[in-house]
Amino acid sequence: MVSVSTPISSASVFSFGNPFQTEAFVNSPLTWAWRPGQLPCGFLVQETGSQGYRVSIALEEQEGVVGLGQHVGPVNCRGQSFRLFNTDSPTHIPSLRSMYGSHPFMIILRDKPLGIFIDSPGEVLVDVGALDPHTLDIRIATAGFYLTVIEGESVQDIVSKHLALTGTPYIPPRWAFGYHQSRWSYPDEGSVREVAAKMQQHDIPCDVIHMDIHYMQDYKVFTVNKERFPDLPKLSTELKEQGIRLISILDPGVKAEPGFSVYDEGMKRDFFCRRSDGAGAFVGAVWPGPSVFPDFFRQDVRAWWGALYKPLKEQGIAGFWNDMNEPSIFYTPDAFKDFAQKVRHFDERNDFGEELANTLWNKGVINKEEYYNEFTHTINGQQVVNREVHNLFGTQMTRAVADALIADDPTKRYFLLSRSSYPGMHRYAAIWTGDNHSWWEHLSLNIQMLISLNLSGFLFCGADTGGFSGDCTAEMLVRWTQLSAFTPFFRNHAAMWAKNQEPWAFDDKTLVHCRAAIKMRYALLPYLYSEFIKSALHCEPFIKGLFLEFKEAAKRLDDDQFLCGRWLLVAPVVKAATHGRLVYLPNGPWLKVIGTEKGLTGEQVQQGGDHFVAATLEEVPLFLRAGALIPMATPGLHTSAEPQHHYRLIGFTDSTAQCEILLDDGETRYDSWKSYPKLLCSVTLQDGSWSCSATFESAQPRPISLEFELWNLAGKRESLSFRYPIG
Amino acid sequence: MVSVSTPISSASVFSFGNPFQTEAFVNSPLTWAWRPGQLPCGFLVQETGSQGYRVSIALEEQEGVVGLGQHVGPVNCRGQSFRLFNTDSPTHIPSLRSMYGSHPFMIILRDKPLGIFIDSPGEVLVDVGALDPHTLDIRIATAGFYLTVIEGESVQDIVSKHLALTGTPYIPPRWAFGYHQSRWSYPDEGSVREVAAKMQQHDIPCDVIHMDIHYMQDYKVFTVNKERFPDLPKLSTELKEQGIRLISILDPGVKAEPGFSVYDEGMKRDFFCRRSDGAGAFVGAVWPGPSVFPDFFRQDVRAWWGALYKPLKEQGIAGFWNDMNEPSIFYTPDAFKDFAQKVRHFDERNDFGEELANTLWNKGVINKEEYYNEFTHTINGQQVVNREVHNLFGTQMTRAVADALIADDPTKRYFLLSRSSYPGMHRYAAIWTGDNHSWWEHLSLNIQMLISLNLSGFLFCGADTGGFSGDCTAEMLVRWTQLSAFTPFFRNHAAMWAKNQEPWAFDDKTLVHCRAAIKMRYALLPYLYSEFIKSALHCEPFIKGLFLEFKEAAKRLDDDQFLCGRWLLVAPVVKAATHGRLVYLPNGPWLKVIGTEKGLTGEQVQQGGDHFVAATLEEVPLFLRAGALIPMATPGLHTSAEPQHHYRLIGFTDSTAQCEILLDDGETRYDSWKSYPKLLCSVTLQDGSWSCSATFESAQPRPISLEFELWNLAGKRESLSFRYPIG
Repeated sequence: MVSVSTPISSASVFSFGNPFQTEAFVNSPLTWAWRPGQLPCGFLVQETGSQGYRVSIALEEQEGVVGLGQHVGPVNCRGQSFRLFNTDSPTHIPSLRSMYGSHPFMIILRDKPLGIFIDSPGEVLVDVGALDPHTLDIRIATAGFYLTVIEGESVQDIVSKHLALTGTPYIPPRWAFGYHQSRWSYPDEGSVREVAAKMQQHDIPCDVIHMDIHYMQDYKVFTVNKERFPDLPKLSTELKEQGIRLISILDPGVKAEPGFSVYDEGMKRDFFCRRSDGAGAFVGAVWPGPSVFPDFFRQDVRAWWGALYKPLKEQGIAGFWNDMNEPSIFYTPDAFKDFAQKVRHFDERNDFGEELANTLWNKGVINKEEYYNEFTHTINGQQVVNREVHNLFGTQMTRAVADALIADDPTKRYFLLSRSSYPGMHRYAAIWTGDNHSWWEHLSLNIQMLISLNLSGFLFCGADTGGFSGDCTAEMLVRWTQLSAFTPFFRNHAAMWAKNQEPWAFDDKTLVHCRAAIKMRYALLPYLYSEFIKSALHCEPFIKGLFLEFKEAAKRLDDDQFLCGRWLLVAPVVKAATHGRLVYLPNGPWLKVIGTEKGLTGEQVQQGGDHFVAATLEEVPLFLRAGALIPMATPGLHTSAEPQHHYRLIGFTDSTAQCEILLDDGETRYDSWKSYPKLLCSVTLQDGSWSCSATFESAQPRPISLEFELWNLAGKRESLSFRYPIG
Repeated sequence: MVSVSTPISSASVFSFGNPFQTEAFVNSPLTWAWRPGQLPCGFLVQETGSQGYRVSIALEEQEGVVGLGQHVGPVNCRGQSFRLFNTDSPTHIPSLRSMYGSHPFMIILRDKPLGIFIDSPGEVLVDVGALDPHTLDIRIATAGFYLTVIEGESVQDIVSKHLALTGTPYIPPRWAFGYHQSRWSYPDEGSVREVAAKMQQHDIPCDVIHMDIHYMQDYKVFTVNKERFPDLPKLSTELKEQGIRLISILDPGVKAEPGFSVYDEGMKRDFFCRRSDGAGAFVGAVWPGPSVFPDFFRQDVRAWWGALYKPLKEQGIAGFWNDMNEPSIFYTPDAFKDFAQKVRHFDERNDFGEELANTLWNKGVINKEEYYNEFTHTINGQQVVNREVHNLFGTQMTRAVADALIADDPTKRYFLLSRSSYPGMHRYAAIWTGDNHSWWEHLSLNIQMLISLNLSGFLFCGADTGGFSGDCTAEMLVRWTQLSAFTPFFRNHAAMWAKNQEPWAFDDKTLVHCRAAIKMRYALLPYLYSEFIKSALHCEPFIKGLFLEFKEAAKRLDDDQFLCGRWLLVAPVVKAATHGRLVYLPNGPWLKVIGTEKGLTGEQVQQGGDHFVAATLEEVPLFLRAGALIPMATPGLHTSAEPQHHYRLIGFTDSTAQCEILLDDGETRYDSWKSYPKLLCSVTLQDGSWSCSATFESAQPRPISLEFELWNLAGKRESLSFRYPIG
């Protein structure tokens, strides 16, 4: 046993067996080598069988458990059971146990909360009192792992300590905070131009259009179909002039087609994952049909892959979207041939017994997990079967791109989105919640998942607004757009088989309400963008469950409303044909505000408690916390069109409230909050009268006018304005 | 055009083309033969193509649409789209469009609500403003249909008129209102006895245990496995002595096995559905493997099938459960052979293109709809393909049994449960909501579906308590048991692959709370049973959306709470780890009551509005409506163990409240509410003092004692007692 000091007080990292170096930690932490009986906080660790561990800890009756990042279900995981093994699961039903990302970090809520991070890239089963109501039971299927135990004063404290170990969350450029429009797929440049034109025509702010898999030639990664997109550089340039950027999707599966340069070169250089039986490159079928998969665990493969992005960037693609990187495998030719053999047997023997029914019910060969045993990665000169390191595959792919983009220009931020993820990847890229459905239940899930993902450090995230699979309805699109207007990643995206769900796809009323929500988003950008970056740099969640800020809320764990940043409580309507909803306000006065396309306007002061809040189709229940000062701008049609000389601010305090408006160029990297150029605004209520001030920090002073709407805690409203330079 | 009078004022039945006689109507109604342009209320009817019709009607902005019986989603169908085509759909996701039953009856909510009933046994597509927000669009795929248009003063009025045309809802014997315990499957008589013993040991009331498919020999319908159930008569007799009855499952698929008497006899008499190509009996694979399906559309086949039930009844089976009667068809040997051929082709050509992926993704051959084109029924001497009359198959099967059981003893009620249904079947049998999941979302769905089913006249219904598929948790079981305690059919049932979920399957706390809920149900039986039968005989829903009784609620259509009978508002907790919920109380004072294993006790008066109501794990928010007088008994361990000489009553009024307690034997059939023997209890508050009375009606007077807990509308509580004979 080695005596250690970790950089984080009260966070201890224990090593079991021979852990894989996932690089979830920003620096290899000093660790305690585990010896039985030497763990804090009542942890029990056992070795199970030849390879594997069980970690268990007793749960008291009233203890909630939060965390675990991307998962289906309530934020409070108590009573639920999960299998962390990255999976392309296209139907997010409540009993789904595995999703695209695995985030084995959780927090037990007690007087002194306890954080637990299991760092292992293989399968991790987490049973949070489903099997035995009084035990948190974790099974690790690898030959070693790191166990981090974090003690803290609060949930926030635990999260900060975890992120101090695993790194500061990813910050995209400012334009990524705009509205994104997507669909599987806008098939050609005409349809892309049409979307851009309709945005303008309907006066809807938009910054990004996404290009899904049909822009490629035969689904060949890094290719562009020349018939449908004859001049991508021209398209991207013209759109850029209109303030709209293009993001393109990229999949890890490389079409196994001799003559396709990526395939040929990868084969020549032995860059693809190998079959476990040693017989060459592993082939699995995805969109392009039989495909090979780069071995992203190798540095040379990552460097190669990263460089392949460059031509697309040079054609004007502004950001990349890594899909299918669990990796999803529809079937393997081998498995299909086995299945065909089986089918032939039943057929020839006319055997229609129970076994045949079982064979057919089990979807034959689709998405079988066995495939992850059938290929290996080369790691430190050894062949390691994918299953052992499975949850890192998508992260390694994404890292390949991130490394390349950073090397390209280390001073600038980049946009990178990934479907699959693992802790550590939160430093490199954004994620979205995957292939959800146009179900009202998935609006609720959207909130739950974003709260949980933020606890894991995945701050820049969002769900497919309107739902991916299935047909969105007019009302659902309005409600979902209202919700997503407050989430960092704000993209409307739909599946091939779904009805159109752009803001104009329904009737006028729907268009009007969606536009209002999107404009409200743009009006709130000074708050959202500044607050997001501050949250990221301070290692705090941005989409927060109320339990993060209010002690009394930790006993309840409501997960159908959230704090957007520290000051704005958002309680979206997530049910059809309803006229309002229940809103829980923790102790203290709150200012109910109305959101319109101009931003927020105060309405009245409301005390803490459980309130029914009416909400017609154009309304979202919104509340400001005491102490808030929310800066807003006049919404432009693009983030870059925002006028930067005039802000409206709404404040709510009996003493002093302040806020910081970032005045950066939206793309330069800064290491610390302090280095960002910003405008510090402050209001004070003293002896019944308001005063205000504004100071430039790390920024060149420039002419600016501020207009304040100020409320005291008793609900009295006043106005104030400020101009620099004075007079 | 024929001038007509239907028995129901303001209900008009129009006939289009050559409608099939579904017998949904109790008497063939007089109808108007349709001629274009001669429809009321703005209906537009068009013939579409060679066979089919389109009915459309404009919807105003604010009009809700309720009804459509068994469907997934909110009670307000506006914005949704359905396909009425009976389907074995084992995953009730929000976008599911077809379920086990089809109920093409709907009500447009306007000042004068409008009822619409489409009587056609083939596919009916109902788009309630999903495609075009302002149109209710109905597509009928058969060569004719009846359109009933019902005008009325209220939703209740429409429902009554519809049921006056289609018949009085089914009323089961009293024991069916007890608690049912089930599982797929209690495999042998030992496990059945053990369940009964545990019920007694844990002091949990129970009336019924269900026997799922494994009691049969090789899934052969009407057989009993002699190894696992060596002496069924002895088992049923012994359980009956303990107050517990057995119900057995029966499927329509008859194992195609020469030597199996049901198969042999049916084949000999040509009783099975024929292949559409004329080549003999149609074979589809279900649980027993390749099976044939009785042609229940034939009277002689129904008589034969009905008689086959008799031996089971003679062995002591108290009721029957018709499953799989959409009918579900896993695959056909033909389809499998075609699939095998296709697979062989891909295999031999090493063709791994998109077509193969599509073939595999589409589940190969499972539950294909084409199968319903491949067999015919003999109807009036003609071969009619199943698709044309598909939605009636389950109803005809159930009718076969109902006819036999009624013929057996016309004076007695019987218990009969069916999965598939169509209007008209509500006269014969109960239904349950099918294979739900252990998802919190399905507690909400449970409420929604029961409200909708009751509008269609399916009054005796319920959902699998605890959820069928997936693992129930301790908390979910408590909450679900609390909900089901108020639904007519109260059965805990789970799938083969689910964890045990009997009340004792979790911890002590769960057992205690489940027992309390079940005992509360038994304590409330005098109210529930009497009120149910009154509702049925008066053609009123029993599980009611609030919009049925309160005008102001019709604007909201809340569907997460319900009225159980006319007097008791139930707002179950349907979320995990919560501490209460929002309850909407329409205008007027309500008495909040606490439910315990002794029944209801008043707590306090609450005014109308949207209230947050706290509810710890043992609590269900419950409210009595002004005018209520709820009779309760001391709960026994079985419905038959209820003491009938003492009742406790809780009343809430400023004037007079009354109730009727049925004193029948629980199994005799009566035609009218008036004929039932009962005790009429009445309380009156006048000049600040309470008086009470009790009168026997159509019943032999007997000694009886009544204990009243009485609340005035201001919340003042008094007690009163009554004894007969006096002194």
